[in-house]
Amino acid sequence: MRSPVREIFRKVDLSAICSFAGGYPAAVTFPVDDLHRLPGLVLDKYGTKALQYGATQGVPELREAIAARYGVPVSRVQITTSSQQGIDVCTRILCDPGDVILTTEPTYLGALQSFKAYRADVRPLAGALPPNDPRGSRPISPRDKPSDPVSAGPSDDGLNSVQDRNPAVKFIYVIPDFNNPSGETMTLEQRKEIVALARELDVVIVEDSPYRELRYSGEEVPTIYSLAPERTLHLGSFSKIFAPGFRLGWIIGPEELLEQIYICKQALDLCPPVFDQYMATEFLTSGALDANLVKTKAEYRRRRDLMVSLLEKYMPEGVTWTYPEGGLFLFLTLPEGVDAIDMYDEALSKGVAYVAGSFFFLDGSHRNTMRLNFSFIAEEKMEPGLKLLGEIIAGVIRK
Amino acid sequence: MRSPVREIFRKVDLSAICSFAGGYPAAVTFPVDDLHRLPGLVLDKYGTKALQYGATQGVPELREAIAARYGVPVSRVQITTSSQQGIDVCTRILCDPGDVILTTEPTYLGALQSFKAYRADVRPLAGALPPNDPRGSRPISPRDKPSDPVSAGPSDDGLNSVQDRNPAVKFIYVIPDFNNPSGETMTLEQRKEIVALARELDVVIVEDSPYRELRYSGEEVPTIYSLAPERTLHLGSFSKIFAPGFRLGWIIGPEELLEQIYICKQALDLCPPVFDQYMATEFLTSGALDANLVKTKAEYRRRRDLMVSLLEKYMPEGVTWTYPEGGLFLFLTLPEGVDAIDMYDEALSKGVAYVAGSFFFLDGSHRNTMRLNFSFIAEEKMEPGLKLLGEIIAGVIRK
Repeated sequence: MRSPVREIFRKVDLSAICSFAGGYPAAVTFPVDDLHRLPGLVLDKYGTKALQYGATQGVPELREAIAARYGVPVSRVQITTSSQQGIDVCTRILCDPGDVILTTEPTYLGALQSFKAYRADVRPLAGALPPNDPRGSRPISPRDKPSDPVSAGPSDDGLNSVQDRNPAVKFIYVIPDFNNPSGETMTLEQRKEIVALARELDVVIVEDSPYRELRYSGEEVPTIYSLAPERTLHLGSFSKIFAPGFRLGWIIGPEELLEQIYICKQALDLCPPVFDQYMATEFLTSGALDANLVKTKAEYRRRRDLMVSLLEKYMPEGVTWTYPEGGLFLFLTLPEGVDAIDMYDEALSKGVAYVAGSFFFLDGSHRNTMRLNFSFIAEEKMEPGLKLLGEIIAGVIRK
Repeated sequence: MRSPVREIFRKVDLSAICSFAGGYPAAVTFPVDDLHRLPGLVLDKYGTKALQYGATQGVPELREAIAARYGVPVSRVQITTSSQQGIDVCTRILCDPGDVILTTEPTYLGALQSFKAYRADVRPLAGALPPNDPRGSRPISPRDKPSDPVSAGPSDDGLNSVQDRNPAVKFIYVIPDFNNPSGETMTLEQRKEIVALARELDVVIVEDSPYRELRYSGEEVPTIYSLAPERTLHLGSFSKIFAPGFRLGWIIGPEELLEQIYICKQALDLCPPVFDQYMATEFLTSGALDANLVKTKAEYRRRRDLMVSLLEKYMPEGVTWTYPEGGLFLFLTLPEGVDAIDMYDEALSKGVAYVAGSFFFLDGSHRNTMRLNFSFIAEEKMEPGLKLLGEIIAGVIRK
């Protein structure tokens, strides 16, 4: 299965248009000054150890830094070569072909790619929620239209009958904080429901959490890992808090599962990039990461607020969107019958790009939705891009 | 399946003993001076592009540099996050559970780990060769004993009957240059046999070639890729010519296979480390790689020659070994009945480590063999280590 997102990047020069399609962090958030300093520091401090093969679990210094930051034992930390690899390796140890994975919807495309590569039987944790479902980070509309039928959490219907329908469930996959693509955050209550279900089914929860450090408003919600440390594999990423050009992430989880991941990772790539791990270690332990994070969050908060105000200004009646408290995305729901896939070629030819929301649903439904990214687009392109998108949507509504 | 080699590193402080066990490059070969210069150069030249997500196929600049170096079209080059990932991704696109992979023996442990993770049915390409088989890089003995029954190539017996026995063969895995663990190199004739067999079976050849640039004597033999570019996936590595702390390798192969690898790699880790790729690009295109390679090969040539001379001095009668024309290893065969696994605890307690050769055979046979690495051990430990090993072997022979 190809990624429709990556296919867009492959075929189109997005620099020429207003693109809300990608999921890249803003280059302005990269700690370039620190990176002029870190490589020399790493060479001086760690010597050729930083250039040699390293431990499969990751270098001890970085594992210790992650353990200290998140308050877990070092023995529960595995460094990964990107959090995408985290998803892949979890699927590999937990799933045989035909086994069932439950996922909330909409969900991360890269996870679906991994699941399909292992021939898992991926099923929605819940069907579409009823309109105006009160849970989840509230979808908002400036005109008080019914909110879109999208939620980061499960419906009661899904929970009640899921065990009977899915005897071979191997794990539950969730993105509780600032979901990609919806931007929504699961409430504590929803997280507890997920944990209860996982305990009932006696299965693992894979908590994909690459955006958790990027909260711009609202209150932090406890991780699912903190609620069920005995059965949760929590995936973190350096891509949004350091730079994605270093392919580094981590898994926090039960030691017996990390032991399986350790063996599996030997076959995958022996060890994560060592030099990059030491740069991340120094970036984190020196306090530079937190200093940079303050700037990063201020940048993204401003961009989110700008995008929401522009949506209010330019979107025609009947269009609603989620209000993300963090992360990189928000999710638009167009009036029933307006098809974001059919509309895509027109949008692209006129100079605006997005990712159709139906790609993030297992059955390709929700064709009237789209994901918009606010982190990567040049800020001055946001207004013309959303104005154009509003006009195109309005044109389709009128037809 | 755990790697017995990595298990050794996990449990024992090898710095305290004379270890011939690992497969690490010598730290002295790492281009530390270049690495004080390269990161700043990369930041100045490529800017934040070097810190962002990159193309799944690898950054164009590095693909072009690899294509130019090896005389292939850029479209036939995929960068991998280590050549271990190259093995893994090839297995993933080519094999379903139960499919047959043919491999020469002894063979690389990390490949066997990947094959088993995908539940492939791995079978030897050939049984043991008869003693004194003239093909392959000649196994030598200072006392003209029969050479060990180990070869990097297939026997005629293997070739003739292999198709009938293996109806579901998906690919042939070979390490033609300076095999890990045997140190041997396949002759042109042997390579042609492999190609003929692959064509007869209509299967792919995975040519694992991480050591090819490290030739210290003898004549270069054409790659299998050059003999059968239509069906060969050639795996290269930066670990031995740059530094393994950057997890970078490449695959050269037919475009239709690379297309499948491209899709698969999206799910594995999205893209190889970008910053490291640009450092490798600059290291390669500036000529620094070739300059460093001259020094690296001189270092390893001296170490190989030293090890061979020490083996001649200290090994008891009945012990033979391969003579590697390159790479990092040579392979010892002890007299029949001397068991390198049984002997291991005694050796370790007395202060010398190796990897038992039987780990590199699918059926755990050849218990009278061992792999010795000459690249990583401190040079001053080579003589005491081999003297000790000779004494231990002599003691077991006398029993």
